[in-house]
Amino acid sequence: MGQKDRYLVMEVGRTVISDIGQKDHSQQDIGGRKNVICLSRPGWGIEAMAEAKAAAAITCSWHGHAFVDSVVINGRPKCECNNCYAGEDCSILMRDCPADAVSGDPQYLEPYWRQNAGRSAVVLSGWHRMSYQNNAPNYISMELERHIRLLHRAVGNAVTDDRFIIFGSGSTQLLNAVIKAFSSSLDHNSPVGVVATAPYYEVFREQTKLFNSREYQWKGIPSNMSGSTNSTQLSSENLIEIVTSPNNPDGNLQRRSKFLLGSSMAAIHDHAYYWPQYSPIPAPADEDVMLFSNAKFTGHASSRFGWAIIKDEKVYQKVVTYMDLSTVGVSSDTQLRVLKLIKTILLQIREEGDFFKFGYEIMKERWQKLSKIVSSSNRFSLQKLSPHYCNYFNEFKDPSPAYAWLRCEKDEDEDCEAVLRNAGILSRGGTVFEAHSRYARLSLIKTLDDFEQLLQKLQTLIFSTDSYSSL
Amino acid sequence: MGQKDRYLVMEVGRTVISDIGQKDHSQQDIGGRKNVICLSRPGWGIEAMAEAKAAAAITCSWHGHAFVDSVVINGRPKCECNNCYAGEDCSILMRDCPADAVSGDPQYLEPYWRQNAGRSAVVLSGWHRMSYQNNAPNYISMELERHIRLLHRAVGNAVTDDRFIIFGSGSTQLLNAVIKAFSSSLDHNSPVGVVATAPYYEVFREQTKLFNSREYQWKGIPSNMSGSTNSTQLSSENLIEIVTSPNNPDGNLQRRSKFLLGSSMAAIHDHAYYWPQYSPIPAPADEDVMLFSNAKFTGHASSRFGWAIIKDEKVYQKVVTYMDLSTVGVSSDTQLRVLKLIKTILLQIREEGDFFKFGYEIMKERWQKLSKIVSSSNRFSLQKLSPHYCNYFNEFKDPSPAYAWLRCEKDEDEDCEAVLRNAGILSRGGTVFEAHSRYARLSLIKTLDDFEQLLQKLQTLIFSTDSYSSL
Repeated sequence: MGQKDRYLVMEVGRTVISDIGQKDHSQQDIGGRKNVICLSRPGWGIEAMAEAKAAAAITCSWHGHAFVDSVVINGRPKCECNNCYAGEDCSILMRDCPADAVSGDPQYLEPYWRQNAGRSAVVLSGWHRMSYQNNAPNYISMELERHIRLLHRAVGNAVTDDRFIIFGSGSTQLLNAVIKAFSSSLDHNSPVGVVATAPYYEVFREQTKLFNSREYQWKGIPSNMSGSTNSTQLSSENLIEIVTSPNNPDGNLQRRSKFLLGSSMAAIHDHAYYWPQYSPIPAPADEDVMLFSNAKFTGHASSRFGWAIIKDEKVYQKVVTYMDLSTVGVSSDTQLRVLKLIKTILLQIREEGDFFKFGYEIMKERWQKLSKIVSSSNRFSLQKLSPHYCNYFNEFKDPSPAYAWLRCEKDEDEDCEAVLRNAGILSRGGTVFEAHSRYARLSLIKTLDDFEQLLQKLQTLIFSTDSYSSL
Repeated sequence: MGQKDRYLVMEVGRTVISDIGQKDHSQQDIGGRKNVICLSRPGWGIEAMAEAKAAAAITCSWHGHAFVDSVVINGRPKCECNNCYAGEDCSILMRDCPADAVSGDPQYLEPYWRQNAGRSAVVLSGWHRMSYQNNAPNYISMELERHIRLLHRAVGNAVTDDRFIIFGSGSTQLLNAVIKAFSSSLDHNSPVGVVATAPYYEVFREQTKLFNSREYQWKGIPSNMSGSTNSTQLSSENLIEIVTSPNNPDGNLQRRSKFLLGSSMAAIHDHAYYWPQYSPIPAPADEDVMLFSNAKFTGHASSRFGWAIIKDEKVYQKVVTYMDLSTVGVSSDTQLRVLKLIKTILLQIREEGDFFKFGYEIMKERWQKLSKIVSSSNRFSLQKLSPHYCNYFNEFKDPSPAYAWLRCEKDEDEDCEAVLRNAGILSRGGTVFEAHSRYARLSLIKTLDDFEQLLQKLQTLIFSTDSYSSL
């Protein structure tokens, strides 16, 4: 049942493992140094490391991935190809394949983690933290919480002193937890209303509707409400406003709606994109409830990790109860991994290898390339973003938003998503964000393949438009 | 920013790493074999492996744990001590410290994973599966899903052919997802009622109440309902029954309540404990919706992983929507780890190193030891469990339940939890399970320290009772 005491020779870089049988430790003369131990017991990490290296060695023509848990074909993990690539090694570019700019899948950051492979890897022993309880209350890792505070201090994007921090399976889970906490905190007889200013991230609406609670309900956008009622009525109603800043989809730094007045109202600030790679950081955010998402920050979307920074202890305690009863906390495997990622980032902050600089340069370049193509015709326009001073970089910075909020300018292009789709570009239409169908969101944070396909299709579309116009 | 091309000598077992500078590969004559490559590029897993080994080498006197993400003191992860142990190395046994038999924290399985360290370790590269999407729809790993089906077939505890499988952050999350799916599937004007036969796991009640939905509500226990209404009324009402089998707390194999009649009713079968280490397996379970929890199965509670096996595609699709909008799927880090754990178990099934045999032997022995002490007086009694034929082991097996469902037999011991507490034993009182306060649940699945403390305190209590009786 246990490990046998055998000795293996391992070439780490190439994952060659040869078993030379049961032996004593042997002292070797290596590279001019005597008495360096060269062989040893295999140790329990060797198999796992060999497996990880074997997967990592499969490049999939740099148009896909093979992971340790990819489907195995002929003893090797099978390549999972990027959009529009196919074949065993993802080397075949498919014809007439639409560019996919729909999801906010932050794969543009993957090269950073490949470059920082040594610092960011994690070895999970089979017995790592099996217990429900972590070393801090509420299922959270004390070290991770401490590093999140260090991170916000180093980046300067949020105040964490004297605040409570709680983890969730992404900020998505925390969103409902906080709405629930607020709606059972506020004095009210009727359900609390949940609102967001359009264009807004559609999950706010869909999730709130899904839970169909007796305590809160989706009320739509504040400006519509002020049209139908007067401001006195609005201020007397209990409302929770979700403020996304920078905003998804348009990248603008947002404040609470001017249509909402009154002191009883609560706000949830979604700061998923309030990191230097997407936005200037004018000052540390200092709101009652702030949500952060690891997905948009480090790019590890499938790890499902986010955190809330909360001022009020009662609200915090209610979020804790929610986390306890909905999922019994957050995966400790993921907590260990996120700790390692944050440590890697902190080690190189404002130095060579700075994570935010890496991310910013990619996002800025993508925005510039897209802007150049869009501005070459009058058919489309983009949201207006201007350079701002960023306290993290200590200089003025050009825009680098996560999404393009494209507007179809031609009178007949009422449905911008359809216009793009007909040109082989998949986007998210404006109505999803409760905005006009004349808008569509293009994701700029996906793989390089995705972005290049988007540019190419957009260029073709605009070129054909110009040809058409000149007829 | 990248890794330097240096060559390291590593003794894996002892995590000694010495840097011998930049060199070419050297071919060494090792152990009588020539041309075995001994040195190599450091490779990106080395640092992580050294870190994991360093933590693993700290034994904490075998009364605690040091993990990679434990708090660091003097450059070393600090020991996190088991209940009633203290000191830097957890070597100090605290006096007058109560035994804690409250939570169902399945740490009794940890020794198995230490013994299978090589097979069960996982190396996570920094770029492992960053995308939201896994290689199968609905955020699930195709390999993990396949291995879960193989597992159920090998164990014989559930039918999975032609069923849908969906993952959750523990079966806790899936419970609400399925209740929600059923209640929006059934034809109804008023909220669907959710019921469970007492004694039942209290999270069913607390979670259902927490979400406070317009679509479903907690209705308590079926036998109470039949007391207040007649069976015709019951059958016309839309009810979802949660059936836990084997039951938490009493370990009995359960069927749907005899108090509930009618064809419109749905049932959710919680099979968290339907594994050979806790229960005989008379036949593969074959229910409409079956929930399984990795926590109770492999013992990895903090990984937060569970799965649902669902017959009806419409119900399945609604659970998918719930998973999407509540947490956007389940951590892929955890999915990779669970895959490795299941592979380790499958490799040794019914052979030397069989996981279920390991777990069963511990649980059987604990039950026997506890039964012996309890039966030595008339003050307490335990639930009646008898040997049953188990299809997994192909023989009759003595009971091995996860919990003792203790009854205080003396007239004055109306509050069994208080009786135990006064004797230095923390338990979960019967009323939590909507049973009589004369009952209390004792967890038998925690660490060996926890179990030994429980036995010792119980023996003292029973001995003092006997002395008292004989006065």
